[in-house]
Formats: sequence, C-alpha cells, structure tokens
Amino acid sequence: MKSWSVNSKLKEECGVFGIFGHPEAANLTYLGLYALQHRGQEGVGIVSYDGKKHHIEKGLGLVHDVFHEENLNRLKGNTAIGHVRYSTQGDDVLKNVQPLLVNIGNQWLALAHNGNLTNAVSLKRILEKSGTIFQTTSDTEIILHLIARSQKDTFSERITDALKEVEGAFSLLFLSQKELICVRDTYGFRPLVLGELKGASVVASETTAFDLMGAKCIREIEPGEMVIISEKGIKSLKPFLKTKTQHCIFEHIYFARPDSVVFGKNVYEMRVSFGKQLAKEHPAKADIVIPVPDSGVPAAIGYSQESGIPFQMGIIRNHYIGRTFIEPEQAIRNFGVKIKLNPIREVLEGKSIVMVDDSIIRGTTSKKIVQLLRQYGAKEVHVRVSAPPTIGPCFYGIDTPTKSELIASSKDRQEIQHFLGVDSLGYLSLEGLLQVEKNERSLFCTACFDDRYPILPKD
Amino acid sequence: MKSWSVNSKLKEECGVFGIFGHPEAANLTYLGLYALQHRGQEGVGIVSYDGKKHHIEKGLGLVHDVFHEENLNRLKGNTAIGHVRYSTQGDDVLKNVQPLLVNIGNQWLALAHNGNLTNAVSLKRILEKSGTIFQTTSDTEIILHLIARSQKDTFSERITDALKEVEGAFSLLFLSQKELICVRDTYGFRPLVLGELKGASVVASETTAFDLMGAKCIREIEPGEMVIISEKGIKSLKPFLKTKTQHCIFEHIYFARPDSVVFGKNVYEMRVSFGKQLAKEHPAKADIVIPVPDSGVPAAIGYSQESGIPFQMGIIRNHYIGRTFIEPEQAIRNFGVKIKLNPIREVLEGKSIVMVDDSIIRGTTSKKIVQLLRQYGAKEVHVRVSAPPTIGPCFYGIDTPTKSELIASSKDRQEIQHFLGVDSLGYLSLEGLLQVEKNERSLFCTACFDDRYPILPKD
Amino acid sequence: MKSWSVNSKLKEECGVFGIFGHPEAANLTYLGLYALQHRGQEGVGIVSYDGKKHHIEKGLGLVHDVFHEENLNRLKGNTAIGHVRYSTQGDDVLKNVQPLLVNIGNQWLALAHNGNLTNAVSLKRILEKSGTIFQTTSDTEIILHLIARSQKDTFSERITDALKEVEGAFSLLFLSQKELICVRDTYGFRPLVLGELKGASVVASETTAFDLMGAKCIREIEPGEMVIISEKGIKSLKPFLKTKTQHCIFEHIYFARPDSVVFGKNVYEMRVSFGKQLAKEHPAKADIVIPVPDSGVPAAIGYSQESGIPFQMGIIRNHYIGRTFIEPEQAIRNFGVKIKLNPIREVLEGKSIVMVDDSIIRGTTSKKIVQLLRQYGAKEVHVRVSAPPTIGPCFYGIDTPTKSELIASSKDRQEIQHFLGVDSLGYLSLEGLLQVEKNERSLFCTACFDDRYPILPKD
Amino acid sequence: MKSWSVNSKLKEECGVFGIFGHPEAANLTYLGLYALQHRGQEGVGIVSYDGKKHHIEKGLGLVHDVFHEENLNRLKGNTAIGHVRYSTQGDDVLKNVQPLLVNIGNQWLALAHNGNLTNAVSLKRILEKSGTIFQTTSDTEIILHLIARSQKDTFSERITDALKEVEGAFSLLFLSQKELICVRDTYGFRPLVLGELKGASVVASETTAFDLMGAKCIREIEPGEMVIISEKGIKSLKPFLKTKTQHCIFEHIYFARPDSVVFGKNVYEMRVSFGKQLAKEHPAKADIVIPVPDSGVPAAIGYSQESGIPFQMGIIRNHYIGRTFIEPEQAIRNFGVKIKLNPIREVLEGKSIVMVDDSIIRGTTSKKIVQLLRQYGAKEVHVRVSAPPTIGPCFYGIDTPTKSELIASSKDRQEIQHFLGVDSLGYLSLEGLLQVEKNERSLFCTACFDDRYPILPKD
Repeated sequence: MKSWSVNSKLKEECGVFGIFGHPEAANLTYLGLYALQHRGQEGVGIVSYDGKKHHIEKGLGLVHDVFHEENLNRLKGNTAIGHVRYSTQGDDVLKNVQPLLVNIGNQWLALAHNGNLTNAVSLKRILEKSGTIFQTTSDTEIILHLIARSQKDTFSERITDALKEVEGAFSLLFLSQKELICVRDTYGFRPLVLGELKGASVVASETTAFDLMGAKCIREIEPGEMVIISEKGIKSLKPFLKTKTQHCIFEHIYFARPDSVVFGKNVYEMRVSFGKQLAKEHPAKADIVIPVPDSGVPAAIGYSQESGIPFQMGIIRNHYIGRTFIEPEQAIRNFGVKIKLNPIREVLEGKSIVMVDDSIIRGTTSKKIVQLLRQYGAKEVHVRVSAPPTIGPCFYGIDTPTKSELIASSKDRQEIQHFLGVDSLGYLSLEGLLQVEKNERSLFCTACFDDRYPILPKD
Repeated sequence: MKSWSVNSKLKEECGVFGIFGHPEAANLTYLGLYALQHRGQEGVGIVSYDGKKHHIEKGLGLVHDVFHEENLNRLKGNTAIGHVRYSTQGDDVLKNVQPLLVNIGNQWLALAHNGNLTNAVSLKRILEKSGTIFQTTSDTEIILHLIARSQKDTFSERITDALKEVEGAFSLLFLSQKELICVRDTYGFRPLVLGELKGASVVASETTAFDLMGAKCIREIEPGEMVIISEKGIKSLKPFLKTKTQHCIFEHIYFARPDSVVFGKNVYEMRVSFGKQLAKEHPAKADIVIPVPDSGVPAAIGYSQESGIPFQMGIIRNHYIGRTFIEPEQAIRNFGVKIKLNPIREVLEGKSIVMVDDSIIRGTTSKKIVQLLRQYGAKEVHVRVSAPPTIGPCFYGIDTPTKSELIASSKDRQEIQHFLGVDSLGYLSLEGLLQVEKNERSLFCTACFDDRYPILPKD
Repeated sequence: MKSWSVNSKLKEECGVFGIFGHPEAANLTYLGLYALQHRGQEGVGIVSYDGKKHHIEKGLGLVHDVFHEENLNRLKGNTAIGHVRYSTQGDDVLKNVQPLLVNIGNQWLALAHNGNLTNAVSLKRILEKSGTIFQTTSDTEIILHLIARSQKDTFSERITDALKEVEGAFSLLFLSQKELICVRDTYGFRPLVLGELKGASVVASETTAFDLMGAKCIREIEPGEMVIISEKGIKSLKPFLKTKTQHCIFEHIYFARPDSVVFGKNVYEMRVSFGKQLAKEHPAKADIVIPVPDSGVPAAIGYSQESGIPFQMGIIRNHYIGRTFIEPEQAIRNFGVKIKLNPIREVLEGKSIVMVDDSIIRGTTSKKIVQLLRQYGAKEVHVRVSAPPTIGPCFYGIDTPTKSELIASSKDRQEIQHFLGVDSLGYLSLEGLLQVEKNERSLFCTACFDDRYPILPKD
Repeated sequence: MKSWSVNSKLKEECGVFGIFGHPEAANLTYLGLYALQHRGQEGVGIVSYDGKKHHIEKGLGLVHDVFHEENLNRLKGNTAIGHVRYSTQGDDVLKNVQPLLVNIGNQWLALAHNGNLTNAVSLKRILEKSGTIFQTTSDTEIILHLIARSQKDTFSERITDALKEVEGAFSLLFLSQKELICVRDTYGFRPLVLGELKGASVVASETTAFDLMGAKCIREIEPGEMVIISEKGIKSLKPFLKTKTQHCIFEHIYFARPDSVVFGKNVYEMRVSFGKQLAKEHPAKADIVIPVPDSGVPAAIGYSQESGIPFQMGIIRNHYIGRTFIEPEQAIRNFGVKIKLNPIREVLEGKSIVMVDDSIIRGTTSKKIVQLLRQYGAKEVHVRVSAPPTIGPCFYGIDTPTKSELIASSKDRQEIQHFLGVDSLGYLSLEGLLQVEKNERSLFCTACFDDRYPILPKD
C-alpha cells in the first residue's frame, strides 16, 4: 500500500555540478555532468538562471541522450546547477529527476542533492499531517518543504533552519535568484569540491569534472560548511554543530572515477595500493593476474606489481551496451555477463588465474564470471577482492541491496568461496584498507564493512 | 517579475471526462476526451485507478497524438478521469497539464478542473506565507493544498472544506482510491453532465462525449451539487450556499460543439436561431450568405433561412493544419488566414455578400478575411455577428484577451465597420440573444457583453 | 507470391507541386503540398536542387508532420518538386514515397508522378529480363529505367523516348540539374496547371496551391504537352501522337478541392450544379436536406436550392481524427463512422430527410450513416448521390476498389436501396452529369460509370 | 561535381553476420552485430526471410539504438543476415546502410558486404552506359546489377558470374529465398568465419560474435571459397582462379576485437607480442609504461613485460561518449581528446613515460595526448607504436585517409617525433611485425606500410 519507504525508493547514487558567473553556464554544467556520468546514468537535469527567470530541462537517460543544442540553448543565463541520478525503479521517475525547481513565497529555488536522508520517513509523516502535499517520492523534496516553512528572511537562513532538522548524507547545491549555495553535511559522507574557471566559481562532486573544462580545483567544501556564491563573492559559514568526519570509503574503493581526487587522495593510486596490500595479505600461486574490467583494473595492476605475477586483460569489456538488451528466448548461458564481458580463451587456457575485483555484493555476477573463466579453459581461479566483505547496506547514498541480499552478511569466507566455485578467495582486511588510507578509522565511514553506522535511519 | 498572475497564465479553456466501474475505463476516457478535443488542444492527460494504484499519462498535443496503445495499456483499472486543456503559453507547460495527481496524507488524489478561480492570487499568497510550495502555475493546485490542509477525515468533507474557500468557476472531477467525486460551482458557469454506459457512470463537459461511446445522458450535474460515485452507488450532496445561476452564454454562441446539448439546449439549434434573429435585426440586401467556417455555419444557415438569401460555402477551410506552420520569409499577404481559409472566386466574384461569424474578438482576423473576399472579387461585404459586441474579458474559463485588446471595448459599431472595411456591420443584440434563449437574463452570465460580472477577480 | 500487381499496390492517388527560380523553393513547395494534402495523406517528399546538388527529404504522414524547420532548411536551392501520396498498404512504404531521386549516367534526376501506368506489368517484365533491378514497387520507377536506357543526349529527349513506351495516366514533374520538366499524358487524365509567382514558375495539380502562396494561374499544361522550364525560359513541346481528351470526371465529383479550378471549371460550382440537377432528376418530399460532410456539402446546397427544402448541417464532422484510433474492445455500434460523424438528434428527430453524398463505393459506410440517422430519430431517409452508380474500378489514378467490391457493379438501384435501408435512393444520371459539364462525353473519362475504358491495363 | 568517387565515399569499414535455420534468427543476428559493433558504428541493418517474404529493418546509429523489440519482432523467419557499417559522411546515408535488398527477376536477394571494390568506378561507368540506375553511392550495389545481368539460372551461378568481373576485397553474405551464400575474395583480405549453433549455421566477420551466443567456430571460410547453406546442407565451391593470400594485417594491429581469433590467431595475444617485439626494437629508460586506451592496452602490457617497466593505466577513457558533443564556444584546450581521455596527474607527475599506441595516422590526436601528458606533469614522453609507419591508404576496407593526410607519408621518424613534441619515438619494424606473425610476408597485405598494393584501384 505504502509506496514510499526509506529502504527502497529513496536509495540513490548521484552527482552534482554547479557554476556561477560564466556566460556558458549551461554548456559547462552539461560537460561537468558528462564527466560525472558514472555517478548516475538514469536521469539528468539542469536548471539555469538568467537574471530574470529560472530555466529547467531534464530527462531520463544519459547526459548526451537528454541534452542537445536545442534544450541547452533554452538554458539561458550565467549560473546553473545540474544533477545526474541513478535510481532503483518507480514508474513515475521523471518527476524525481533533479534539480527540483519550486516557487517558495514567490521566489524560485532549485535544488540538487547527492546523498540520502536518514530521517526522511518521520519528517514526511509530520509534514503530511500539517497539510503538505508531496509531488515526488524523493527525500530531497522534504528539504524544500522545510525551507518553505521557515519564517526566516533569506534563503541561506531558511536553508540553515531546514537542514538543522534533517539527518543523513547530503552534498547540496541550491540556486536562488541571487546565490549559488553549496552545503555539505557535518559528516562529509559525499565529496564536494570547489574550483575556479576564468573568474567563475564551479562546484562538483569530483575533480574530474574540473579537469574536462580546464577549471582549477581550489579546495574541498568542508563537512558542515555552507558556501554562498553571489555577485558579492564567496562567503563561508559553519552554521551546524560539529560532528566527527565520516567520509564514505566506498568512493575510494569503487564509486568515484579513478582520475578524480576525492577526500584529498587520487582514487587510482588508492586502488593500486589496495591491490598491493591485497597481494601482501592474500598471495597466490598463479600464472597471471586479471582484473574484472573496468573497475577492477587498478587493484589488479597493484596486485601484479606486488606479487610479480604478470598482468593480463584476460576479459574484454564491451562498452557499446545500451539501456535495454533483448535476450533471445532460447536462453544463452551466463548471457547477462557475456553481453558485457568476454574472456579470451588463448590468454586463460590451462592457466592458474588470480581474478581481482573491487567488491562482491550478491556474489551472483562473480559466480558467473568464474564459470566463464573455467569454460574458457582456466585451470585454477583465485578470486581477490580489494575491499573487506560487504556485510551491511549503505544509508548514505550508495545503492547497495538490503542486508539479506549481501552474500557476506550471511556466509563466511569459506562458504562464499564454495558458492563462487573458486580455488581460493581473499578479501582485503579492514585494517589493511585503513592502513593504506593512512587514516584513523574515525575519518571514514566503514559501516558497510563493520556495521558501525554513524546514524541509523528512523522510521 | 511576477510569473503568476490571474490575468494571463491562469486563463484556461478545458474539457473533462470521467468514468467509474467500466473494464475499459482508460480507453473510454480517451474517446470522451477525443470528442471534447475542441475544448482544449494543447495538452491532455488521463489518470486511472486499478484498485491498488493510480496511473497517470499526459502530454502536450492532441488526444490522438499523446495517446497510443502502449500508454493507454498502462492506464489500468476500471475508473478514470481525463482532461483536455488549452493554455495560452509558458515554457514549462507539461507540468500544468491535468489531471494533477498528488499524495495527501499517504492517499493519492487526482483532480481535473474546467473553469477559473477568481480568488486564486489571494489564496496563493496566504498559502505561500504558511510554507506551501507550488509546483504548477495553475490555479487548480490551490484546491489541492486547501484539501491537504483540511482536518476532516474523508475526501468529500475535505473537498467541501476547500471549495468553501475558493471563488469562481469550477466543474471538477476528483479521483480518489474509492470515489469519483464531481463538483460544479454554485453559479453553474461551465457545463457538466452525468450519464450511464452499461452500468458504469460517466461524466463529461458535453453530451457529445456520451454520443460517441453510446452512453445515455441522464442529467446535468446541478450548480452547487457534489456527486459522489463509488461502489456503493451515486450520492448527491448540496453542501454549498445557493447563489443565482450564471451559465456561460458563450458555450452556446461559440465554445461547445454544435451536436452537444448544453444547459438543456442543443447548441446547433441555438446557433441557427441566433442567425435567424440576427437576420431580423440586421437585414441586408445581398446575393449570398456565407459563413466563416466552421463555427459560423449554423448561424449563417439561420440567417439564410430567415432572409431568403441563398447560403453558399464561399470560403473553404483546410482542416489539415498542424500546431506549427512555417511561413516563407518573403511574406505572403494574409498568410495566417489563408493557411486555414480559402475563398472561392467563382462564388464571390461580383457578388454582394453577407458574411456571418459568431464573434469578433480583436477584429484583426475578420479584417483579413474581408480583405481576402474583396481580393477574390466580392462587390459588397456585409458582416453579421451572431452575438453582441464582446466588450470585456471572461474570468470564468473562456480564453478571451484583456479588455484593451477587445476591439468592441474601445470602438463603437461604426468604428469597427470602418476598421474592418465593410459595407455594413450588424451585431445580434443582447436582448435578441436572450429572447432566443427564452430565459431570464439572470440564468446566464453575459458579463463579456454587458460588464455585469457576477464575481470579480481578487488580487 | 508475387508482391507486385497492377490491381493492388500500384493504385495511387497523388498530388504534385514544382517551382523554378525562387529563393524559398522548398518552403513554397511545402506550402503547395499542404494545399494539396487532400490528394494524398500517407506520404510526402520534396527534392530541391541548389545548383550543385540535389537534396531530398521525405517521410510517412501529413505534410506538417513530416516537415519542420530543420529538414526544410536542408532543402537548399531555388528549384524544387514535391509529392503527396495516398497508397493502400505495404510494409515497406517509405521507399515508395516520391519524388524518386536517381543517378542516371552521373546526373541526378528527380521524378514526381500523379497517375497510374496501365502497361506497367509488361514493361517491368521486359526490363527485368534484361537485368534491371527494381527498388520500389511503384510503377513510377519504370519511367526512370526507360530514361536510363535511352541513348539520346538530353533529359528531355530521353524522357520523350521513355514516355513513348508507357501507357496510362501521368502528370509528371522531373527535376534535373538544369531543368524542371513537366509532362501530361495525351489523354489529360489528371490535372496539371502552370502559374507564376514573382518571376518564378510554379506547377501544381490544382490551383488552390497557387492561391495559398499568392501565385497567379497562367494556364493548364495541355494533354500531351511537355513544358521545359530552365534559366533560358519556358519551352513548350508536343512530342507525342495526339489522342482524344479524357479528363477524369471524378476530380469534379469528389477528388479535387472545391476551391480549385480543374479542367477550366471551379469545382465547388460544378458540385452545386450536380446537386441542382440531382434535385431535378430525383425530387423528394422531405423536411430537410443534409450533406454527408465535408465532401457532400456543395451538392446538398444545390439540392436544397433547386428543391426549396431547407439545408441543415444535420451531421457534425470531427476533424481531429488522426491516423490510428484505438477502438475499445467492447464494440461500439457504428464506431468507425461515429468517430468522424455525429448526427444532431434535435435536427433530425421526427423529420423526413434527404441525405446527399457524392458517391457510394462499397455502400457499407453509407449504410452505417443511415443507421445512425434512424437511431437519432429520422422518420424517413432519402439518399441522393451526386454522381452515377460507380460500376468499375479506375486504372488512371483514383483509388477505387476492385469491381467485385463496388456495390453498384452487382446490385441495381432497388437492391442498393434495400441494402442501405432507405426510403428512396436516387443517383445523378450520366446524361445529367455530362449536361452539367456542358461537354461532349468524349472530353471526359467516365469509365467508372459506363465501363468505356479508353486504355485497358496490360498484364 | 562528381558525387561518387573511389577515394572518398566508397571507403567503408564493416562487419557482417548471418544465420541459417534457427527460430530466433533475427534476435541472434542482432546479438552478433552487437558483438561486431566495433567494426562499424554509423549504421546497421538486418534482413530476414520467413519462407515467404524477406523483411528488412535498418537505421543510422548503434545496434542497440536502432533495434528494439518491435522491429526485431517484425524480422520473422529462421534465416537472416546483418551488417554494421562505418561510413565517412554523406547526407543521404540511410540508403547506403546494408544489407541491400532488391528484386531480381521477381526473386528477392539481400546482400551484406565487408570490403571495398577496386574497379567500382570503371564498372559503374560501363553499367551506366547501358542504362543502369544507381540508387546508392555504395560499390556494393554494382555486384547486384552484375547479378541481375547474368543470364545464368541459379543465384549461385549468377553470383559467380558477377564476382568474376569485380576486383578488390569482399567478404559477402547473400540471402535468397532458399540459400545463405557466403563468399570471400581470393586474397582473403577481410576475415569471415563459419560456425554452428544448435544445428543452425552461423557466419561472422569475427569469432567474438560466436562467443556471445555460445556458437562453436568451425573454420574460416577460405579465400576464394563460396559456401552455400541451404536446407540440403552446406556446399563448398571454389569457382574463382586462385591468387596469393593477402590477409589485412591491420585487423591484427587495430581493427579486430582482442577477444577474436582472426586469420587463425588470437588478436590480443598478437598485440601483446607486438608490444614485446616493440620493446626489443625500441627500448626506453622510463618510470612507467602507459597505453592509449583502449586499443593500445595489449601492446603496452607486452612492452611492460618485455622491458620490466611498470604498467599503469595513466589515462582514463570515458566510455559514455555519444555521437555528437556540444563544445562550449569558449574553446577548451584539447577538448576533442579530453572528452574521451583524461590523464591522472598523480600517476604521471615527474615521471618519465612510455606511451604505447597501435598506430599514428594523421598525428594530430597523438600530439594532443602528448600535450595533455606534459600538462599533467610528465617529465619525459617516449612514444612507441606497435606497427610500422602508415605511409599509404587502404583500398580494401579500412577507413584510412588519403596519402597526403598520413603523417608518415611525408615526414620521417625524426620529423614526426618533432611534430609530436616527444622525447623519443619508435615504430615497430615491418620485419619485426612479420616475425611475430611468424608468416611469410606473402600471406599478409602490408600495403599501407610498404606501398606494395596487391591490386590498384581503377578509375
């Protein structure tokens, strides 16, 4: 009956980009979102402001499918924010594509949100009781209603009021008629960086967006910081109570692009180091090391370098894959994997193989890849995972399935090894992971590996 | 600066259709809207309910452009409401296409509205002050927020609460999870009829929608009546204070389809009678009577019958016209008229002509048609209008321009005759009009002809 | 097995337009085709030439659906020809949309054809034997292969060579790199008129295309004439053996637009006169005369004028109908007719009615309309047809069904009256028809009424 | 003036797939083409035959953009052929998308062609003289006209007749009403392999198409072989005069997918070996080896293994790129490269780098990548190319530019090194390349490296 629940629909992965004071604001936002496409492939939107009016264009699909010269030209103005979004499902999804644009007391405000609120359900219940109508099934809309209810005068004050009531992960970009306001939650779950391009200010989820357009990265927006960009310049506020920092370690392991600097570290280098540490913790006697492409490549290179076992691209990834794919009725074995990944018999045949991947979630895809490797002649298959076992879901913006679907939540290493049908299985230890990060555990959220959730969702 | 004003954006012409308890609810709603297409050609939507879930499909364009087998099939359930809409403009129009579908306290409610609220601006201001966010620029959304704010238990009570606060014209269809609720304002500005089709209940703006599907018209929904259709049957309430009846006389003159019965009268017959009365009031010495097709045809037939002057289709209308039309840069004289209307030289040449139209709004189109007639050889042109001079805008759901744009608001008959360049000009008198209606004036709203507005818009 | 036969696929109704020497050639061709839309609603194409290159754009659907600013802009040059087409069916229809554009000996040639060849089957067989590949299933392609095979030097000579071998009906427009060549078969079956617009030459199937753009009609292109328009001016040739003239009388009765002048006569006036003659031949005692709209309107006006029985628009036509229409599974009686035509009960009830139509082909639609009239209360229905009984198919470009499907080929008047379920039935006599035309029979092809085919199709 | 020339339009890269005797012929062809997508991304088509009728569907774009359930369902039958195509440009490209489907003597024949004819211009001239009309600008159509002109009885004989007249590269699939006929030119320029899937026969350009659907590769179709697949079984003919074998070595170097077996060798392994040989011939003192992804990866792995210099993915490729991309007006330096490739500063900074690519064509892209590497901090850049300098165009089906555009046709190694702005440059020698192939030179066409063209194009 209830179509709105924190456990399913609200789960979102996203990327955001904003720019203030550039004559080609929309075009550059489009480029920034293109660079952030890996953070969300299901929907994309841009809102611009031209000094008189906000313009909005959005659609379902990839950035280059949704945007073209015609709708980019309609996005007039030298200020803009944009959003790419991955969402699980829902038949009415276009509504949920961000940025949201609403009229609050005769002023328009746009909002793009990366993250996930943990007290959305209870806030929604309270708002509904007092007569609020919800038009989306996204938790982001709650923030807007809270802003509308604040009795403060300026948007920055009203946003502060609203955000004091919400809990969870949020890297937010607001676009009013005067200001581009950027806020990051006090834990700093999701990344958010500030840059500069020929006098204009830019903000993005990852630095790779800056690279593409030749913008310079200035600094991270800090956990708990509100940055207000206007014609008067850049103002920084810290209006919230301080908490401990909880960067999402999954950004380093899997989610961010390898060419980005996230939480001050280059992602590719982190992954190579995870692979080296993995080789130290779980050596293997093997002929070759192969990655599950593309995300497993850096860790496999690290494993190969540390172990001295030669690296080979033993599986070829087909990048032409589109949204939907017609499978013949007459079932093809392991079709879902083969449509993306094809092993090379001549590389694998008769070999003992280390296969490096960055994570095992349900285990079903890994099992199919292992079957393929065997089918193509692999003698031995040793799986090495460049992260600890994933035992819990994420409530802060990574789209992991529920606990019961996570293979490592109910099976131990040996059972998983058996399930996958491999000759050996090794996970990077949490200690090894954090040692590579050379950080105290307290700086990172590792809840999906150790069940220590900094905030729990409220029903 | 203000993007929301009662004088422009809110002006809407619309048609509504609803059905309760038929296995092909969406398909029949589609047919009903097709029959009501003349009431709004810019956007169309249908919401259905299948016992578990509401489904919504909408788009910009004509009924047969927006709907096809695929999206009609998605509209599951045996209850549905639909809406066709004409709106002036706006870049974000899809949002405004109805029915609106919102979640109020965890229950979904859909709304389709024909009419126009006159206290929308002041209600909106009050709602905004208390933190309401508006997602559309349509006055219809106000009704939904008022419903959400009501503390009553059932939707019918909450709707009653809400409608007690609004003023203006409204023929409304609500679709909740249990009921199809139909309400007409106490003045009865817009039509709304109730019918029956093989045990299912149907409601529509005009009876022609019933004809197409073979439904039987039972009766008008009365001014101030709320009809609640549910599995328990049909319940009629009169929860509002009674006012005088003010049917929109323009429905008879121009807006409704000639094959409909509106306010108890067949529209075609009324128009023929207007034409006869016009011939009595403003005879002419002429060779032929021609209509401005299609809407002027019945009155021209009446004029011909009363006067004995032969009727001819002296102007041919091209019905293939689409939404946009590319005009060559090298301007073609009177192109905007010629793309729709082509006179026949052989019929007009050397003749003295009575041209009958149903109204003159700005006068610019009429002037161009007259120029065309002369260019095709007409010796004399006598314009006869089957309605009184339109001197004021409509605030109740007919899309007339502002007062200053209405030619008859600032020019007298002789000046208009001169502007049009015609040999004589005659308007049907208000008295003649009402005599044909054989009704007391008080039953009809004739504000656009006599400035006696039953309710004035509030800022 | 055989997918190509003169009896089915080749049957085509079409309209053509051409222009030479105007900076907006494509835009004006688009307008011309829009005005000729009634001659073919299934496909449309334009070829332009810009002094260096031919450009082609075509598609299935109406002129304003297929063409928009973008593809019109691609049609560069100041010379163009276009074609609208009605074709019965076929899954590969886009190929058959004209103009055809081919490369003959390294020169491009475009061709638009209105009409139908009667020796297509035998010519095709001969060409195939010598190694010709056919890419379309249209008889028009045969003309191009014959041109390619001619050993003459210029296109006008090669076209002459080719056309000497074909038989049947053809009004043709060719666009080479230098010339716009217009040819009409020696019988003059289909119309083709020459006009002038600000120094540019224009050609069209009907004069209404000229009216829209303000072009002046100069004259008909004569039966058997070849008009060559180039930068050197207009040249007229008569390269073919003369035959008797055989104008298609169905253009006057039904096919052409009423505002066109066809074969030197205004179509509307002819139809009014047919109606008057019909009233003389088949009077009726009735209360009102109503047309089957839109094509029956002029004849009904004529019938009313001659008989003195009042004219009424007793049936309203819905012009919003699109290509496809979803019919509810739960069958609606006479749905196919009701979707287009709705009678007005108040006009018909208790009345004795003369219903005027321009032709009865299969009789099935007429039967349904009669049923509707009775259902809406008509006391008596007298059908009057403003043409003689259609007893044979057309081989010259009108899409009539095969002989066995024509109701009048196997039933006499009384049997048809019985089939339709009407109180009386009267057809205009062939003598009456020709008397109105005030022409010798020999000037018109009346084969579909009297079986005297001037050329018979060859297998 | 001349819009048809062997030097521009005819140049094509393609892939073909065919299947005979499988209930899901079209679906599997779709999968096969998806696996061959790298051979042509601009257009795709499938023709199927259902025992009664051929069906054709084609479009511009990627396989998964053009095909969907609806049009695949229309491709009925258990026999089909398909084609992916890369073509340079042309406004009328849809026409050129293959398979071509034509009617020859009342029998339908479909053709898909990978390769390039070298005597197309002269054949076309001869055919045109005798009255042949060309509907495409593709050389493939010539083959069909030659077949139509043959006086032999069966399609296999007529195809043999036709192919005796053409010269150049062709791997062809024909689909008649009875047979799937596969032919490869006598040189064997392009690959073509025969396989088996659950009793059905399959043919494809590369074995990777078989892998995806679980088909077994049986053997190569041999140079000069015609394989006729029908319900009677598989028949092999060798109807042509034998010539020397001339496999295209560029398939191994760049064009084929690394997971395919082409000319009997696995492509990935060949490329790794090329990289090893390259390291022997052109060692470098460097900190890391990086590939230009994706095609340079295997050779870079080989170079790293042979040289012992660590392999790193120093450049990240963005795979989301679509057909068109909007570049901001305010030019971004090296935008065209950056939209696809982003270097990682942390990997490159202060390092001496070996960058491995598989070929340098014009040199402009390589130059931009080198600039990017320097901008991201590379201390030294040593470019190593896993093929000899490309000094001549390909006339046999690889889309290389004209000789004058090939940087190595006019510049020597040192000049290119200077142009690229690199610290050193090394190409794999032709001897080294052939030694890796462990083949006599005579088995491979290496014309683009040594100017020894086995057949020259005829004007």
